[in-house]
This record gives sequence, C-alpha cells and structure tokens, in this order.
Amino acid sequence: MRLAINKHASTPVYIQIKDALKEQILSGKLPAGFILPPERRFANINDVSRSTVIKAYDELKALGLVVSYRGKGTIVAEKSEPEKTHEESHVFPLSWHPLFEKKINDINDTVSDPMNTSHQHDVISFAAGIGDPSLFPLQQIEGMQKNLNQAERLNFTAVEGYYPLRERLSQWMSVRGISASPKDIMILSGSMQGIDFTARTFLSPGDAVIVEEPTFLQAIQCFKAAGAKIIGIPLDRHGLRTDILEAQLARYKPKFIYTIPTFHNPTGTVMSMERRLALLNLAYKFQVPILEDDPYGELYFSNDKPLALHALDRHGYVIYLSTFSKVLFPGMRVGWLIAPEPVLKKFAILKQITDLQANTPAQLVLNQFLREEGMEQHLHQLLPIYKGRRDMMLSVIEQGEGLIPVDIPQGGFYLWCRIPPSVSQKELFSLCRDKGVSYLPGNLFFPQQSEGEHFIRLNYTYVSQESIKKGIGLLLEAIAQLDQKSDNRNIKEESTPIV
Amino acid sequence: MRLAINKHASTPVYIQIKDALKEQILSGKLPAGFILPPERRFANINDVSRSTVIKAYDELKALGLVVSYRGKGTIVAEKSEPEKTHEESHVFPLSWHPLFEKKINDINDTVSDPMNTSHQHDVISFAAGIGDPSLFPLQQIEGMQKNLNQAERLNFTAVEGYYPLRERLSQWMSVRGISASPKDIMILSGSMQGIDFTARTFLSPGDAVIVEEPTFLQAIQCFKAAGAKIIGIPLDRHGLRTDILEAQLARYKPKFIYTIPTFHNPTGTVMSMERRLALLNLAYKFQVPILEDDPYGELYFSNDKPLALHALDRHGYVIYLSTFSKVLFPGMRVGWLIAPEPVLKKFAILKQITDLQANTPAQLVLNQFLREEGMEQHLHQLLPIYKGRRDMMLSVIEQGEGLIPVDIPQGGFYLWCRIPPSVSQKELFSLCRDKGVSYLPGNLFFPQQSEGEHFIRLNYTYVSQESIKKGIGLLLEAIAQLDQKSDNRNIKEESTPIV
Repeated sequence: MRLAINKHASTPVYIQIKDALKEQILSGKLPAGFILPPERRFANINDVSRSTVIKAYDELKALGLVVSYRGKGTIVAEKSEPEKTHEESHVFPLSWHPLFEKKINDINDTVSDPMNTSHQHDVISFAAGIGDPSLFPLQQIEGMQKNLNQAERLNFTAVEGYYPLRERLSQWMSVRGISASPKDIMILSGSMQGIDFTARTFLSPGDAVIVEEPTFLQAIQCFKAAGAKIIGIPLDRHGLRTDILEAQLARYKPKFIYTIPTFHNPTGTVMSMERRLALLNLAYKFQVPILEDDPYGELYFSNDKPLALHALDRHGYVIYLSTFSKVLFPGMRVGWLIAPEPVLKKFAILKQITDLQANTPAQLVLNQFLREEGMEQHLHQLLPIYKGRRDMMLSVIEQGEGLIPVDIPQGGFYLWCRIPPSVSQKELFSLCRDKGVSYLPGNLFFPQQSEGEHFIRLNYTYVSQESIKKGIGLLLEAIAQLDQKSDNRNIKEESTPIV
Repeated sequence: MRLAINKHASTPVYIQIKDALKEQILSGKLPAGFILPPERRFANINDVSRSTVIKAYDELKALGLVVSYRGKGTIVAEKSEPEKTHEESHVFPLSWHPLFEKKINDINDTVSDPMNTSHQHDVISFAAGIGDPSLFPLQQIEGMQKNLNQAERLNFTAVEGYYPLRERLSQWMSVRGISASPKDIMILSGSMQGIDFTARTFLSPGDAVIVEEPTFLQAIQCFKAAGAKIIGIPLDRHGLRTDILEAQLARYKPKFIYTIPTFHNPTGTVMSMERRLALLNLAYKFQVPILEDDPYGELYFSNDKPLALHALDRHGYVIYLSTFSKVLFPGMRVGWLIAPEPVLKKFAILKQITDLQANTPAQLVLNQFLREEGMEQHLHQLLPIYKGRRDMMLSVIEQGEGLIPVDIPQGGFYLWCRIPPSVSQKELFSLCRDKGVSYLPGNLFFPQQSEGEHFIRLNYTYVSQESIKKGIGLLLEAIAQLDQKSDNRNIKEESTPIV
C-alpha cells in the first residue's frame, strides 16, 4: 500500500497519510474488515518513520474509522460513518435566515463591493479611509518593539486598557484642549468599537439617534443593527445645522447625538465655534448625550488647530472617541474613548463579553511611541505631505472648470464633490472601474441611500501626488463623457434659474 | 513671570507652560486685558527656547484664552470662558442610567472583583483562565516577527482575516478531525467575539438559548446582554444530559445550543461519543444550530485525542469556535470561527461595525508560527508541564482526605471541586483572600447565581507546581477551618442518608 506522500509539503506527513486512508475508507475502496498493513511494514513501504504511521493510525482511530485489536492489527471499522444513523436520513438542511435576529437580517453589506474594487492592484483608489502606509514610521516602531517589557507584552492588560497608555493619552489629549484623567479613558480595538458600544448601551429597537447627514457610513450600519430610527440633520459649511436640530430634538427625543465636528467624514467640514456652543446648549437643554467622533482632529493643514467639542463641555455630556488608525498603522486596531464613569462601567462589561481587551503588544508599542514624542514628530512630517496631496487633487479638479464643485477642507482625509445632476452614480462608478479609478459613491453616507446620488467622496491621503494627478484626470474624463451624453437635458436645466 | 517648569518631565515644556497659564487665566489670576510678556522675554525669564513659548501661546490662542494683536502682543481674552453663556446656569447633570438600554442596564459586573483579587502580586491565583505566560515561546515569536512581510504587517487585512492564516488554520483543524476550507474560516479578536456575534445574530430579547449548567461565565453574561432566556441543562461525567435536553428543546424552541464539549469549562468533562451523536441528532430533529466552543481541545493529557463535534456534523448545523489564547499569548486576542456561509456573511457585517478586523501583526505572526510547525512543538513541551501541575494539584487535594471531592480531568485548565455543604462560599472566598489564595466561586458559572454555592473552580495551568502545593494547602486549611465551625450541623446532615 504505497501512498503519494510529499515530505516537503507544509501538511505534516502523518496527516497526509491519515487523509489518504480516510478518503479510501469513506469512498469504500477499503471496505469494512480490511486489515491495514502493520505499522512497521507500512512505514517501510512508504519510507516514513514508524511513529508517523502510528500517529496516522491513531488519528483514524479517533475518527472511529478503524479499530485495533491486540494480535489482529488495525482494521477498517464496521460502520465507517458512525453518525450516519437511521434517523439521519430525515435530516433537513438548516435554513439559517429565519433564525436570524430581525435587525441583523435586514442589514446588507453595502460597503464591501466598492471597497473590494479599490483594493485591486491596478486601480487608483480614492475610496480608502486610511493614510498612506508607506509614510508610517515602521522603522521607529520596530525599534521600540525590541525595548518592550518582556513580561508585560504577552499578557492580558486590564479590560479598560494598559494603564501607562491611558496616562499617556490623558496628556496627549491636552493638545486637543481636553482634560481627562487616565481613569476616564478606555482603550478600544479601534474607535469604531466605541460607536458600537454606545449603540448597544443606549439604543433599543425604535429608539431615535441623531446623525449629521451625510455621515460616516459604518456608523449608519451600526445604528441600523441596533434597530434605531436614524434622524439625519443636514450640514452646511459651518457644520451641523443646529437650527434644524432643535426641532428634531423636541420631536424625536433621541438617545444621543452622533457627530464628527472636526474634518467631518465625508464632507471635510469643521463645525464653527458658534455651532459647537449651540450644539452643547441644545444637548444640555434636552438632556441628550453627544457622541463626538474625532478620528481626524490631529490632521489639520492650517494654523487653526481645532478644539474638540469635549473640551468645551463642562457638564459631562460628551462621550469622546479617537483612534491611532488614521495617522499610524490601521491594522493595529487601537482607539480610545473618554466618557463619564457610569458609561465607562457599562462599556467595560461590553468589552468583557466581546473581545476582553485590545491587543497587548499594540498597546505597549503605542505607549512607547507617545512617550518618545514620536507622534509630534510623525505628524510634523506627515501633514505637509497630505496637504500637498490635497492641493494636487484640488488643482486637477480646478482644471475641470467647475465640472465637480468642491469645498476646500482645512484638514482630514476627504474631498466631497458634487457631480453633475445628469451623471448617474451607477454609470459613473462602473465607467471609472473600467478606467481603473475608484472612490465611494455619496449615497453610502446617507441613512436613506436614495440621497447623496450627486456626490462622491475622494480620499487624498492614500495614494501619491502622481497617482492623484492621473486618477483625477481619468475621473474627470469619465464624468465629462457621461455628462455629454445628456447634454441637451443639461442645458435646459442650467438655463432654468436664469429665466 | 517665572513658572515652575520641569524639563525632564514627560509632558512637553510648551504644554507645561500652556497648562500653567491656562490655569492662571481661568482662575482669574491673569485678568482679561492682561498683556503676556513678549515671547522672547518670556523665553529668557524661563530659560526655554522662543519657539517653545510660541507654541505655548499658540495653544492658548487655539483655546480662545488669549488673542494677539499686531504691535500689541498677546493679551488675555475678554471672555476667557466663552462657553459659560447665560443659558448654562440652568444645566442639569445628565442622569445616565435612565438612558441606558434596559438589558445592558440590568447586567452587573460579577467578574471583575474576584479577578482583581487574583491579580494582586502576593496572591496565588487559581482563578485564572489562561496558561502560564512564562511558558510561552517568546523568543521564537520574536524571531518570526523580524521576518514578516513589511508591507503587509501594517495594513488592513480582509474583514474575515488574513487569508494565509485562514489557509493555515484550515490545515491545522484537520488535527481535530474538521474539514473546512479557508473560506469557511473567519479570524476573530478572541473566540469570545464569536459568542457575542452569535448572540447578536440570533437572539432577540425573550429568545431562549440552551447552555450546559454550569458553563463559561462570560457566555452567560453575553446571552444576558442580548436579553435571552438562558436554559441550563445539567452535565454528568459524560457531558450534557441529552435525555433532559430533548424535553427542553420541545418546550423552549431555543435559537441555538451553546456547548463546550471538550474539556468543559468549568468542569473539565469531555462529552462522550454517544452523547455527541445524540446531541447532533437532537439538533437535526429540532433544527437547532449548535455553537461549539472549543478553546481547550488541544490540551489533552492522555492519548485519546478528542474529536470536535464539528467533525461529526455532516449537515452544517455546527458553528465552531477556537482560539490561540489558551496555548499562546492571550494578549494577542486572536481566535477563529468555522461556520456556514449565511452565518459568516452576517458575522462579516458585525465585524465591520465593531472592530473591522483582528490586529494585523498578531495574525501575521501566528500564521508564521503555524507554518513553521511551532504549534506542534510548543504543545509537545507544554502539555507534560500542565499535566504535572494537574497531578500536583490532585495529589495535594487527596491529602485533604475527601474534603473537596473532584473528578480527574483528562485535559483542559480546571478542576471543579465540591466544597462541604457547611462552608459558605462568601466566607471561604474572603478567608482565602486573607490567606493569599484566590479561585473562582462556583455560582459565577450558573445562569442563576443562587446555584453553584458548593463548588469552586481551580485553575492548574497558571502557577508553578510549588505555588500549587502551597496554595492548595492554604485552601484546604481554610475549608477545614470553616467546616469545623459548623461541625455539629454537618454531622447531622451527613447522617441523614444512613438513617
């Protein structure tokens, strides 16, 4: 009995033997009662060690496929499939969907498709939500990894996170005007987890939650998964329209307000100081907590460093979220949260029953990075590069002579562009894919995806200036192409306001 | 204006200056209109660089605490606390608890207290749920880290996990008798996350879920957080009592059955082959999925390597969970899941709205570890040590002459001991704390914590044989002490069955 064994394969030889024999037994090639060769002989025939054969036979025994009798050797078992009992002929395949919880069953994956397109190698991606990995301080981080405390780096940290990192963040947050003690800070596996914890802690099905419209698409998904009613409040150039907010607060009594006040995703807007104060006052008046999502706060290109909303809140209404994923390696999955004690206590329970704690080595190395002032240095190098890319993107768009109007963001990752009303989002996306360019369609950022049809989000941090130049050129080309197709209709539309 | 500046503190000097000035402005020591010294003079007085002072002043400007006028210098702003507007005098502190979702509000943190006790340095901990960190292959892992692909290690992986790791796990799982393609496998941030995803995907409030009784305590918390009705089915030495299960399946129509068939937590039981087949047949008959939690499957001390329940399931009813956290560094937080496609799709959405993906460097290094057959070697060294510790614990317990009866587990991490009925769980726990020993009280493992009063769970993998000897000695001493206190009552109780 000679089998085809590959000693250089990554699958261990004994498993190869087991699998081959298993297949022959299950297929009936080796019938019940067949006596396998004694281990030593089998080993000689196949040029493997006897212990390897013993291991393989043991595996088969554990599977109930063979039995061994003293003096008789190893024999293919009578019932080679013990689980195929009489009753099993009636087994129905399980239909999973009726078993799913209603809210989860209703959610569809709207994100993966455009994301997958953008991860193809030959595509210039403006769809990303991350920085340029080639600009991350890999060498520095690796150097630090060597100096980590050996005992600590392997073990559990507290559920709330590694305490020295929480201390460091408490100092670092003063840059954003925030005073928070380490005990107010919890380390998360990315700041998205803070959105999820807030949703789970506050939202029952049917509860209302207020968001900016448009807003971060995964936040929409997350609030949907909680069964919430999502109330969108429009933005203008000064941020959330607090005048509209007041009426909605009275009507919907939301559980909380979700906002990205600084370098908003997707629009790049910074909420003005007046609006921030108005928002806080409305929160106080209606006693509604605010979830401030601040992943981009450090990414500013002008000298006006924006203050966090949390820094203005003297009454503990704001839950604050931020992350390392936008300026450092997103694959590390480390974010943090600042919240009042009753909220942190509930979140600690959720942390215990979800992932227990953020990855320990990542927490230790980020602590080191902050301690050695790596963050300041890194931002100092990074920001001019991202500013240059933003400027490049804006200048190419300008060559389009108003084809896609856009506001100039003073920081963050994105341009939010209006496309001509005659251009169909779907057609543009697939034409761009053919040309090798990707971006995110505007509708993804609206709770009702029927809106946002005439917007697209362009990321300018992920690819080089050269690729930006080429990619935006292709995008403009695609838009012009689709726009011309409907030139007649377009001219009529444009002339209306003049008449 | 000379400030107390510590140039050797970890807080940057400019932040120290900013904080000091901020405090003086907010406290009114520096009134509105006060002109701060010119930057150069301030720098000279405090022996710092001028650029440091500029940075500090800029910070204060960003906070709106000072303004600078050309030719006039930097002046404390009129309204140093812009947010203290008229309306704010009416602000009420937010009462958070009424805002919390009911299910979450009802959950209390029963775990942290005993866990915290056991993390004190002078305590011998039998409360742990992890292996001995000093036995983990740190050197080897560090060596591998150096060889990782630079580009990959920083970036995002797919939501479902790093594909090469999924391939590797697909091979590794054949050791447990499981055939799964890489596409059936999803990488999780610890296997707990799989329990949480299953709860969120299947359970609406009021839905029933079946668990073994006792069972993994965080699973109980997790199902409670989903608002589920938790139906406990007792165990005996052969595992889950499938005879009792059948009636409960008919009565409660549970959404799924949660089981730890192999080296059960907390009892150490291995479900017999007959029971496994009976369980599967009941699942098929009632069309109920099974969530198989298998963190300990590789940790067996005898030659009878247990087969996973998933390996016996020919009809795709079993969702399988396992983890690296019991044999390798738990702080890495990497587990995995094998499930049918419709389930994986929903879980991928949940992954996107919670933490997006497991930590990338951890996934890469574990892939390398499996590829170089590090796992086999590591287990080969580890298991005899844990077996030795189990034996040591058993032998000390034996010296107690039946004071705490216990079954001998053939693998896993725990002994499940019965304590005399006269001994109060609470008193024992606090007496042991005084003596410097910790463990987990049995009630934590029951959905109704009134049960389990006469059991304790002892972990034998976390501390050395020497500590086990000493710690179990102290534990027996404590039990004997409390048992004697109620000797009279005890004798009566014990004599009852004889009469």
